Amino acid sequence: MQINDLYTPCLIIDKNKLKTNINRMREKAKKLNVIFRPHVKTAKSIPVALLCGGDAIGPITVSTLREAEYFADAGFTDIIYAVSIIPEKLTRAKAIIDGGADLKFIIDNADIARKISEFGIKNNFIFKILIEVDVDMHRAGLSADAPELLNVARALHEGAGTELCGVLTHAGESYDCYSKAELMNAAEDERASITLAAQNIRSAGMPCDIISCGSTPTATFANDLSGVTELRAGVFVFQDAFQAGLGCCSNDDIALSVLCTVISHKNNQDRIITDAGGVALSKDQSTRGTDFDCGYGLVADVNGKILDNLFVTSANQEHGIITTKDGSEFDFSAYPIGTQLRILPNHSCMTAAAYNEYNVIDGSSEIVETWQRCNGW
Amino acid sequence: MQINDLYTPCLIIDKNKLKTNINRMREKAKKLNVIFRPHVKTAKSIPVALLCGGDAIGPITVSTLREAEYFADAGFTDIIYAVSIIPEKLTRAKAIIDGGADLKFIIDNADIARKISEFGIKNNFIFKILIEVDVDMHRAGLSADAPELLNVARALHEGAGTELCGVLTHAGESYDCYSKAELMNAAEDERASITLAAQNIRSAGMPCDIISCGSTPTATFANDLSGVTELRAGVFVFQDAFQAGLGCCSNDDIALSVLCTVISHKNNQDRIITDAGGVALSKDQSTRGTDFDCGYGLVADVNGKILDNLFVTSANQEHGIITTKDGSEFDFSAYPIGTQLRILPNHSCMTAAAYNEYNVIDGSSEIVETWQRCNGW
Repeated sequence: MQINDLYTPCLIIDKNKLKTNINRMREKAKKLNVIFRPHVKTAKSIPVALLCGGDAIGPITVSTLREAEYFADAGFTDIIYAVSIIPEKLTRAKAIIDGGADLKFIIDNADIARKISEFGIKNNFIFKILIEVDVDMHRAGLSADAPELLNVARALHEGAGTELCGVLTHAGESYDCYSKAELMNAAEDERASITLAAQNIRSAGMPCDIISCGSTPTATFANDLSGVTELRAGVFVFQDAFQAGLGCCSNDDIALSVLCTVISHKNNQDRIITDAGGVALSKDQSTRGTDFDCGYGLVADVNGKILDNLFVTSANQEHGIITTKDGSEFDFSAYPIGTQLRILPNHSCMTAAAYNEYNVIDGSSEIVETWQRCNGW
Repeated sequence: MQINDLYTPCLIIDKNKLKTNINRMREKAKKLNVIFRPHVKTAKSIPVALLCGGDAIGPITVSTLREAEYFADAGFTDIIYAVSIIPEKLTRAKAIIDGGADLKFIIDNADIARKISEFGIKNNFIFKILIEVDVDMHRAGLSADAPELLNVARALHEGAGTELCGVLTHAGESYDCYSKAELMNAAEDERASITLAAQNIRSAGMPCDIISCGSTPTATFANDLSGVTELRAGVFVFQDAFQAGLGCCSNDDIALSVLCTVISHKNNQDRIITDAGGVALSKDQSTRGTDFDCGYGLVADVNGKILDNLFVTSANQEHGIITTKDGSEFDFSAYPIGTQLRILPNHSCMTAAAYNEYNVIDGSSEIVETWQRCNGW
């Protein structure tokens, strides 16, 4: 099967680029002397997770219990579910652990810690929990110096149904950093803050074995992770136009694309229409408002070569509208109806979520493998 | 099973509201004396399509061949695939027709008409085709008075492998109308333009049996559809915050919601976090820039009552961040961790696309049915 034979829209993974991206991050983790625990939320695919582990099963991070189940079924054992767990989800979570996985959770609230412990006691069970630390006021978690951090730690440590395993953070603010200096500062702030949280917990006489940080931008720009035990990062496997805009990669590193086909010419409006619309590309416009705005994704030809002057202006449900970037006349003869194009995502995690599988190429236009992914919750 | 028992995030359909929305549009089509051919792209679900047909199989519109297959398998026969077909997709399309469905297509290009005819001749087959007409320069299609319209009609009419069945349009511009007068004008412009296209084709001595128009806003505000034979509309089944903003419905008519759960309190930032993030809500922000901007959806309590002062400010992959709309202090005690909320979508078509099923309620908190939906291409 060749790219030309694929029904569009569909996803293409360039395996060479994927492996390069993965190896670069593996090397980074090795150099910084931390365990590499990739966040599999981006690809949600076993072959990609295995590549991240060096052709082996390694520690992973997941964003849904559905992912935890999917990867546990495939033999992955060391898993952190990096979204706050709530008591209502413990029965399902426990079933995954009962199946053999060493699944760990995060929380940021002492009441929840006590409720989880109660559930554990009732079920003769100990839940392994990390505390989410907020290093940049960007998402969830407690500040490293918040008195509440120690209250949560104590509740987990003293609870008979819980085990305090460490601290975890996500430096989301790095997505708002637009210079190398800012990104290096964000990485160092993340390190300093998460290690301070760990130190505060240890100083209070409690254990804090895992010190987990991550985000592709901070992982890319970190020069020192002293005190940190593991590195999570997710989108680096595919990269995307937003990461390229931040400087985490080049556009040429982007390993994921939506293959689509030109289905209509609007001769009186200087635009063409493809079959990759808002569902196929996602409505994510992360790059909007930046100087690397690329609409709904970077337009490339079927071989992946970026077509600098084309721009996905709008995306209806099943129609993607492409114009010239500079408003010049559209050269319709260069893109006959039936022409395949590839759109490199603004945000790979969101774009990939609309699909159940990846078509994998490896240096030519032949589809060498088809990889499944899991979706939903 | 009760709403409280559902694992979140998941979708809820309020069946009463759904039926009211559907009956209103059925009545509208009846009053305007046109065939009702709902666009099933929003719900992509057989029970919803059956309700649209008055508890029966009726004519439908689809946005993907996957939908065509799904509905054809369920016994739907009269189907229009309302996205430009291309020769590369004909083999799969023909298989659906071979299976018994009367599947019709749209195009807007004479070369494509000839290529489809050639494919038909080669396969001893006749493809039924409508011409897409552009009434407002918003998406694909040919203008009603474009000479090219007659070229396409002639190619279809004279091609031995094609049958010219009529004209079809989508008044996409209606989504940019913000007053009743503008919407009524858009509806009348759509009618005038599509009937002009039909008249031009007939005047040239060719048939034009189907004259199909649609979009929820124009269908809602049309007072006269003289000359039109059928009405398509899609999002009306669920409605959404955008349609409510346009005046096509009230917020209370919105039949679809994302059930989610509060998973974290950010006490130092006056915000709560739920487990419905960008995948669960979609990244669609249709209402952005309007005076009915609702972020990533309208926040309601578990009973569907809209909480006017809450606002989904941002949506990371699996985290939805809710603040007060007016910046006032957040009353955390009113929303303990574990509280279920319902988010009414900005754009139902995009939000529903992340899920495989709907949980149906009917006047109480009991889940009375679970309905499947199809996704992908």
